[in-house]
Order: sequence, then structure tokens, then C-alpha cells
Amino acid sequence: MGAYIAVDVGGTQIRAAVFPEDGVEPIRQKKILTRDKDAHPETRMNDLIAELWPAQEKVVAIGVAAPGPLDPKAGVIINAPNIPNWKNFPLRNYVQERFGVPVELGNDANLAAMGEWKFGAGRGHDNLVYLTISTGIGGGVICDGHLLLGLRGFAAELGHVTLIPDGPRCSCGQPGHLEAISSGTGIANYVAEELKKGAPSCLSLDPLPTAKDINLAAQKGDSLAVAAIERAGMYLGLGLSNYLQIFNPSIIILGGSVTQCGDLLFNPMKAELKQRVMGPEYLTNLTITKAGLGDMVGLLGALALVRNLYH
Amino acid sequence: MGAYIAVDVGGTQIRAAVFPEDGVEPIRQKKILTRDKDAHPETRMNDLIAELWPAQEKVVAIGVAAPGPLDPKAGVIINAPNIPNWKNFPLRNYVQERFGVPVELGNDANLAAMGEWKFGAGRGHDNLVYLTISTGIGGGVICDGHLLLGLRGFAAELGHVTLIPDGPRCSCGQPGHLEAISSGTGIANYVAEELKKGAPSCLSLDPLPTAKDINLAAQKGDSLAVAAIERAGMYLGLGLSNYLQIFNPSIIILGGSVTQCGDLLFNPMKAELKQRVMGPEYLTNLTITKAGLGDMVGLLGALALVRNLYH
Repeated sequence: MGAYIAVDVGGTQIRAAVFPEDGVEPIRQKKILTRDKDAHPETRMNDLIAELWPAQEKVVAIGVAAPGPLDPKAGVIINAPNIPNWKNFPLRNYVQERFGVPVELGNDANLAAMGEWKFGAGRGHDNLVYLTISTGIGGGVICDGHLLLGLRGFAAELGHVTLIPDGPRCSCGQPGHLEAISSGTGIANYVAEELKKGAPSCLSLDPLPTAKDINLAAQKGDSLAVAAIERAGMYLGLGLSNYLQIFNPSIIILGGSVTQCGDLLFNPMKAELKQRVMGPEYLTNLTITKAGLGDMVGLLGALALVRNLYH
Repeated sequence: MGAYIAVDVGGTQIRAAVFPEDGVEPIRQKKILTRDKDAHPETRMNDLIAELWPAQEKVVAIGVAAPGPLDPKAGVIINAPNIPNWKNFPLRNYVQERFGVPVELGNDANLAAMGEWKFGAGRGHDNLVYLTISTGIGGGVICDGHLLLGLRGFAAELGHVTLIPDGPRCSCGQPGHLEAISSGTGIANYVAEELKKGAPSCLSLDPLPTAKDINLAAQKGDSLAVAAIERAGMYLGLGLSNYLQIFNPSIIILGGSVTQCGDLLFNPMKAELKQRVMGPEYLTNLTITKAGLGDMVGLLGALALVRNLYH
């Protein structure tokens, strides 16, 4: 009996909310900037939690969604490149020592999968594959009703599988990963390469077009922009066909800004998926859908994590 | 309290054994041929179980390992190409009706993973990736202490992920799967192609060399045979690097006849794995090892399945 506090830490802002024992409407919530010249992000985060702390009700647990790589079992941020000094930082203990209630930590993409499973587009689906496609590609998987974590919680890096062994370089340094092709960065890099080769387009190299610029151009029919998004969709479909055979899910949920490309991305994705899948049994009763929680996904994922453990 | 019966059904033979409540030494075991002109395989299987049925002890449950694709949740063989008439065959009910005890069915590669986890090379590893590399490539995964099944039990088809989008055709019909490159069939097909192109080798096209012939030639230093096995190992390493990022296991177990190639296969596999992996954290505390249960793996996998459920 009591309330839950959920925190969603990003490179730009920290959001926190108090949730009741049941339901997904926050009792109180607030967001602040992550960086401030006078205080470390972890201090600002703890102060935000303290500010929201309910006067009347007991807090059962605090859930924190943070950018990876992190070790959810040890409660340690391994390296959050966008947050100053969060290297091998024992975030769970840091929060727990101040507030004296259980604290759980999860990778933001994993917790997004949890949030969609418990409260969003994936309700009722105990075998769920979630991808968030924006600057990078993050993943989360529910297998037979369990969040896939692996030995140290580093599993489900679904953007980091090789689709083209000698393909374009990924943000992680490896060639040919799904993320290097189908993320916003992958789309923008492809367009820049083609522009350098002299491909005709309404886009130009100065300034370099972003994935958003490319989507706008594609919606107006620019052939290079269309080809770039179709290529991203095709490889996304190839990647998803692998995940069907690896996880046999009943639902695939796609989130992130690149999904705003809509059918320009989804049609080639579905065509490739259908062509590549090993057998029709993987498509029977399969739902492919967009994420349902919008920008609440981080908070609701962190809530799902702690409610699942402490309810 | 009581005994367990384990059955391992293959295209050539059916093995069955009675196991005590604890331990892995069978009390009685027998194997018979799968095909016989006078009786269907399912009748022969049931008669074998009846013949071994213990006179004194109660039987707690029967576990059956069978070739896929099969639906372990429904207890139905979808299609076992090597066993006559086993198409959409409700094997679990068929056995259960005769003996009146719980019967559980599993895909042989999945149950091999279970067997290695409970009794073999994977003991103590709750995050385990198992591959059996022979004519084809089968897989089984333990995630956080659970056998990965997916919606209908079709998950963990680890041989059927695309590594080369326009690569050689797999037995399943799709191009560029791991199985099409690194299985015994993949190795033999590669050698046949190269021989047709005139590659110098002690091997010849008539008769077409098998993976076993190629391994023998490679051990004697034949350059084509060596290159074929090294190529298989390299792509195996690439596939495994994906699985590290997908599952973050603490152990990878390799079984099947192709592992007899030894370091000719394993050295390029390990080199590629090390080069491709996204970060050193996936290699920390990672064991890569050969399977430990030999030809008992099917029976012990079926035993592990039922002991895990009914002990």
C-alpha cells in the first residue's frame, strides 16, 4: 500500500512523477534540466525526488530509467555519455541512501518495452519486441512474461546486430549494424553520401540534412529522400525477420522519432519482413504497431519496473 | 517421488530411458529404429515406452525431444520431415492417452540447451546460448533461468538469422542465413562451388565431398578445405557476436558434428567474435565451450524438461 516514484533521466532533462498504487495518472510530476552549473545531475535528481515526495503517503519504491549502458542488477551506470561524470556511477545506492526505500534502475529502452507491455500498445502480449528508432536504435524484449536482461543486463541491444558485414559504420564503431542503416543517423549519413556522389535532390550538403529534413523532403516526393527512407525500412524489415525467428513474439512495437516517416518506412519494412521470414507460422497472430505511450514512456516504464517487483 | 521417462525421437532411431527421481544415470534404456514396415513411428514409440515402464515405481512424467518445427505449448509436431506422417500430429495427447501421466514435448535443440544447462557444460549458467552445428544449425537459449520459447515455441531458431542479405540459399529457402554458411551443408556447398570454379584441392566433385571429408582434407592441410572451414568459423563468430548483444549470456555451448573440426573452426570464430563484439563487457566472464552430454543430450534434455516442471 502506497505510492511509487518514477524518474526518467535523459541528457537534456530529468522528469519525475509520483504515481498512486494503481493506475497510470501521476499524482504530481515535474521536469528539470539535467545540467546546471551549480549542481551535479545526481544531486539535482535527488532534490527533485525530495520535492515531489508525498507528505501523507508511504513511498513503496523508486524506479529510474536512464540511458545505457548500465547494469540494472548492480544498479550502476556504466557510462552515460550525455551526463557529466556518470561513469561507473552507483546510482541505485546513491538514491537509496538518501531516501531509504528500494530503488530499481533500468536501461531506458528496456523499460520502454516494460511500459508498453504493462500500460501501452503491448498489454496482454507476453512475447514482445520493442524498438525505438531515433538518433540510434534501442531495444527491449519481453520473453514469456520476463524482461530480457542477460547476465549483467546488457541484452536486447537490438540496434546492434550485423545486417551487412562490410556495411556503414555504427555509432558503436562496428560495421553494418541495423542502427547504422535504419536510425535517423543512418538515414542522414546515407543521404549525405549520395549527395556527395551527385544524386539529384532538393536537399543539399550545406547544412547537412537531418532525418527530419529528409522526411519532409520525402513527403514532398524527393526521390533521394524517398529512397533513403525506403532503404531504412527495408533493412528494418530484415532485422525484424531475424527477431521473429529469435523471439517468436506476438507483437512488435516501434517507437522513436523515425517512425514519423509513416508508411514510407513501414511499407518497405513489412514487404521485406514478409519476404524474409522463414515460415508463415511466425506471422500468424503477429501484431506490428506503433508505440502507445508517447513521451510518458520513460516514466511509465520505470513505474512498470517497480510495480512489477513490489506490488 | 518416482521415476521419469525420457524419449529422444530422431529420423533414424528412437531412444527411451527410465531415470530415477534424481541423478542422470538411466535405470533402463533402449533404442530402436524409427521406421518399420509393420508399425507407425508413434506406435513404435509408445510400445518402447511400455516395454521400459518400471514395474515397481510410479512414473511422474514423460518428456519427449523431437525434431522441429513443433509447438511445445500445444504438444503438437507441426512438421517432422524425416518422420512419416508426423504433420500436425498431436504427439503429447497421443502418448498421454495411452499412459495417463503428464507428457511434455520439446524441440530437440531447445531441449539440448536445457540438458546442457541442468546436467552438462552449462551448469550454473542462467544465461546460456546453445548451438548445434551439423547438417543444419539448431539453437536453444536460457534467458535469466527460463527456456526461451516465444508465443508458440518457435523462438531460438539461431541458425536462421541473415548474415549476408544476398548470400547462399539456406535449407529453409531464405538467403544468407548462418545455417547456409556455417553448417556442414554450408561448408560442403561452398567447397562444391569452389571446385566447380577450378580451385585446386585434393577433393573432387565426384562424389561430392561431405563436411566430414572436408574436415579430413583440412586436417591434412588442403588449402580449399582449410579455407572452407575457416569461412564457416568466421561467420559463426559474426553470428555469435550478435547473440552476445541480444542475450548477454555467460556461456556459449557448441555441439554437433561440425565442432569436430576443432581449432580450424574455433580459432577464426573466436577472432571474429572478438573483433565484432560491441564492447568488452560482453566478453567479461564469458565461457565458450563444447557441449558436454554427447549423444545423451536428447534424453537428458527431455529429462531436464520434465524434472524442471514436475520435481
